[in-house]
Amino acid sequence: MFLKNTWYVACTPDEIAEKPLGRQICGERMVFYRGQDGKVSALEDFCPHRGAPLSLGFIDKGELVCGYHGLRMNPDGTCAGMTGQRVRAFPSIRSYPAVERYGFIWVWPGDAELADPARIHHLEWAESPDWAYGGGLYHIHCDYRLMIDNLMDLTHETYVHASSIGQAEIEESAPSTKTIGDEVVTSRHMENIKAPPFWAAALRGNGLADDVPCDRWQICRFTPPSHVLIEVGVAHAGKGGYHAPAESKASSIVVDFITPETETSIWYFWGMARNFKPNDEQLTATIREGQGKIFGEDLDMLEAQQRNLTENPGRKILKLNIDSGGVQSRVVLDRLLAAEAAERASRVAASAEAATAQAAAAG
Amino acid sequence: MFLKNTWYVACTPDEIAEKPLGRQICGERMVFYRGQDGKVSALEDFCPHRGAPLSLGFIDKGELVCGYHGLRMNPDGTCAGMTGQRVRAFPSIRSYPAVERYGFIWVWPGDAELADPARIHHLEWAESPDWAYGGGLYHIHCDYRLMIDNLMDLTHETYVHASSIGQAEIEESAPSTKTIGDEVVTSRHMENIKAPPFWAAALRGNGLADDVPCDRWQICRFTPPSHVLIEVGVAHAGKGGYHAPAESKASSIVVDFITPETETSIWYFWGMARNFKPNDEQLTATIREGQGKIFGEDLDMLEAQQRNLTENPGRKILKLNIDSGGVQSRVVLDRLLAAEAAERASRVAASAEAATAQAAAAG
Amino acid sequence: MFLKNTWYVACTPDEIAEKPLGRQICGERMVFYRGQDGKVSALEDFCPHRGAPLSLGFIDKGELVCGYHGLRMNPDGTCAGMTGQRVRAFPSIRSYPAVERYGFIWVWPGDAELADPARIHHLEWAESPDWAYGGGLYHIHCDYRLMIDNLMDLTHETYVHASSIGQAEIEESAPSTKTIGDEVVTSRHMENIKAPPFWAAALRGNGLADDVPCDRWQICRFTPPSHVLIEVGVAHAGKGGYHAPAESKASSIVVDFITPETETSIWYFWGMARNFKPNDEQLTATIREGQGKIFGEDLDMLEAQQRNLTENPGRKILKLNIDSGGVQSRVVLDRLLAAEAAERASRVAASAEAATAQAAAAG
Repeated sequence: MFLKNTWYVACTPDEIAEKPLGRQICGERMVFYRGQDGKVSALEDFCPHRGAPLSLGFIDKGELVCGYHGLRMNPDGTCAGMTGQRVRAFPSIRSYPAVERYGFIWVWPGDAELADPARIHHLEWAESPDWAYGGGLYHIHCDYRLMIDNLMDLTHETYVHASSIGQAEIEESAPSTKTIGDEVVTSRHMENIKAPPFWAAALRGNGLADDVPCDRWQICRFTPPSHVLIEVGVAHAGKGGYHAPAESKASSIVVDFITPETETSIWYFWGMARNFKPNDEQLTATIREGQGKIFGEDLDMLEAQQRNLTENPGRKILKLNIDSGGVQSRVVLDRLLAAEAAERASRVAASAEAATAQAAAAG
Repeated sequence: MFLKNTWYVACTPDEIAEKPLGRQICGERMVFYRGQDGKVSALEDFCPHRGAPLSLGFIDKGELVCGYHGLRMNPDGTCAGMTGQRVRAFPSIRSYPAVERYGFIWVWPGDAELADPARIHHLEWAESPDWAYGGGLYHIHCDYRLMIDNLMDLTHETYVHASSIGQAEIEESAPSTKTIGDEVVTSRHMENIKAPPFWAAALRGNGLADDVPCDRWQICRFTPPSHVLIEVGVAHAGKGGYHAPAESKASSIVVDFITPETETSIWYFWGMARNFKPNDEQLTATIREGQGKIFGEDLDMLEAQQRNLTENPGRKILKLNIDSGGVQSRVVLDRLLAAEAAERASRVAASAEAATAQAAAAG
Repeated sequence: MFLKNTWYVACTPDEIAEKPLGRQICGERMVFYRGQDGKVSALEDFCPHRGAPLSLGFIDKGELVCGYHGLRMNPDGTCAGMTGQRVRAFPSIRSYPAVERYGFIWVWPGDAELADPARIHHLEWAESPDWAYGGGLYHIHCDYRLMIDNLMDLTHETYVHASSIGQAEIEESAPSTKTIGDEVVTSRHMENIKAPPFWAAALRGNGLADDVPCDRWQICRFTPPSHVLIEVGVAHAGKGGYHAPAESKASSIVVDFITPETETSIWYFWGMARNFKPNDEQLTATIREGQGKIFGEDLDMLEAQQRNLTENPGRKILKLNIDSGGVQSRVVLDRLLAAEAAERASRVAASAEAATAQAAAAG
């Protein structure tokens, strides 16, 4: 169960730089490519000629060309041409709304006529020269909601990431969670603690002492369909914590875009945006490498958890206060999923009514 | 859906030189071995003692011996012996008609009493000293008919094999297709073209200039159950094309025997027979290596196409004029499949009738 | 179909030395660990918090701690604690009776209240200083009964283990099989034979001539649920065979504990116990290496046999006199499986009756 009338991150520009990219999203096999004028398009990954995946093809003069027999496609899913054939009567394939923004390609897997680029989640840090971003992509065999749970309850850092960002004070500090409209925010503040290795390095990277008591914060924000953006940081103790001035803290935004592939697998786009030393590319690379290693530690756990839940479908699991972030996120998702189903039903009914009226008028 | 009362290529002699070979053909697991007097036999790959695969056994004194407990088999599927046991009452296993001819082992997976070796496709080139042959085997996860389609529409060469045998003139020349009895022939002739790399090399290999305008031809012949033999070649332009004298052309026969393993996998025996420099073994090896590389380019495409078609079972695909070869081949196959089903039904009915008559006579 | 109210070997102490071990036994995923006071426990491998496998966790102060969010478990399946949470109301998970004895961890996958450690198969050799033991573990994709068949009919040695322990005299000597209560014994005695390579080495290892005629014996003992202990040995001919004095023979016990993982896969604990040179650790290592190689030869055959039987479910296989050991073992198993099913049914009925009586008394 995933929302379809919404924008998901589909891929990054480097993935379509050389050739088309085949990727399954929300159960649909799609091909992404950069065509005429550099515009990105998304089509069904199914050539109307013989069913070959278009993603095995190539781009020629801005057109996607099937790699089997050379049928050429337009970005709207109609056939553009084929040597020796008139393609006007060829069946079309589905085209998905796709937008390139903030350094990502976004796709709308639902009803195309509802797709509004203005609804793409605004990312301040992606447009400002004061910020730098680095990230990566993991393919994980788990329900996308297990990854939302993971990110909305950072007590797991103490166990899964013990050597980098985990520390006992995380689980000793109760989180506070609230839902505001479609957004869920779960916050945790720790005071007078020792910065764990990752953050000690970040303080040094920012030219600050790393061996003094610090305040630390984690503010996780879930927004539909499955984005989790987390404000994280440490400040020298007594300087105001989260509100401390820039010269007393190291802070950043953990970026998580979770795109369902199937009911039990995801494309997980992870990264970190920071507003200190934004032009230090070496620092960006170092942080990305460290974050990639840390975030990779979750993979085995999530896949093993998924296997256990799949094998025990009727089994209840606990919802503790630390799980509130994930629980409230699911409440938002369930509400939106119900709304999407209702909307779809009413559209079907309306079109049936229109057809009946038309038939009556004609009869 | 595959024909069963017909001859398929099962394996090549080198595959059974050292030990028995287990291979699934048309859904049936078989063991092939060379027994008494060097004669090749095919049996069910199932030891009547404890169900172990006989293909894990060995040959002793011309008998196939199970590698688990030593039951010895006769080529007709009866048990030949077992130390310390009287095997007369042992159940038999199925024996499949098998014939070694033309450098291949042929098997008949259907009703044994209908098997007639005279119906094995005659291969002129396999018996003549004027011809040389080299080939190989690929295991591919696709319906055998997708491979027939592939070989009966060579426009794919322009895309899949762009760097070796592909060229724009192929798709620019409309093919002509006709069905003659059970055979389907699709032909394409190109005139005054530049020989593509593979053929330029063949011209040089035959001592001919490779930089002059050429005529090129491709005559694909499908015969049941799934053989595709393709006459291909180039001649210096104006020398008569396909009918040019031997000293002005380089030509050969592309050999394709497609043996279904399951509904969605095949054993693909490919090769090339040529009637120039037949004793040049180095040339045979060079051609085989080149052809193996080229034909290997189809594998990913066919398997990806199969996956797309499996996931979209109801979906129609196009049948263009270039697809006529495959389409007409399927018409032949469907006709023969229906005939085989009818024949089977009438045999069942006849045997039921005989049983009733016998019962009445006895009653 | 496997017995559940019985003791199986689950693992060896080295497998839980560093961290918890996740292992599926009789279809149930379990975690084994050494906790407080070094006592071994077995729990469901399912954290009651979020369903993560506990086997990905660690041991802290004798408690099993989930590696995801730190829930701590007691050996009885109740929750021991979690930072910031009161765990009294947390649901428990299943605890399995587990006992460490004879160098193995034994587990009882059935009704815990029926588990009696006294019913663990007594292993004389595991407690006596006159004996040494070495062994290993294989994971094999076959029904556990196929492995019982394998071990209760050693004629396969002639074929599968031809270069080490096989010899023609095995299959030439008819075995004798009998059932005594729940035990099945199949014996084979060979006289005046040449010791095969493995036994020639054992004679030399025991300081005896290896090039003189020998008597050889194999006495296979099946006991439920799936233990096969085999007395094997050779003696210089004419010294009394199986009853020969220690200085004229080399003998040992082949140890086979077969633990079902699923209906078609097993954990196979194999080894050899010997009562000569028990303190020669180099000899133990040499024998283990040799036995491991020999026993590894069965794997492919058993998995291929399983595949053949799975594909041909209705097919009958033969039960010859050499198969009596396996056949009689299955008779014992079937009787015990029926008894276990009847016992379970009567317990269900009794508890339903008690509930009715209670309701009537309350009503």
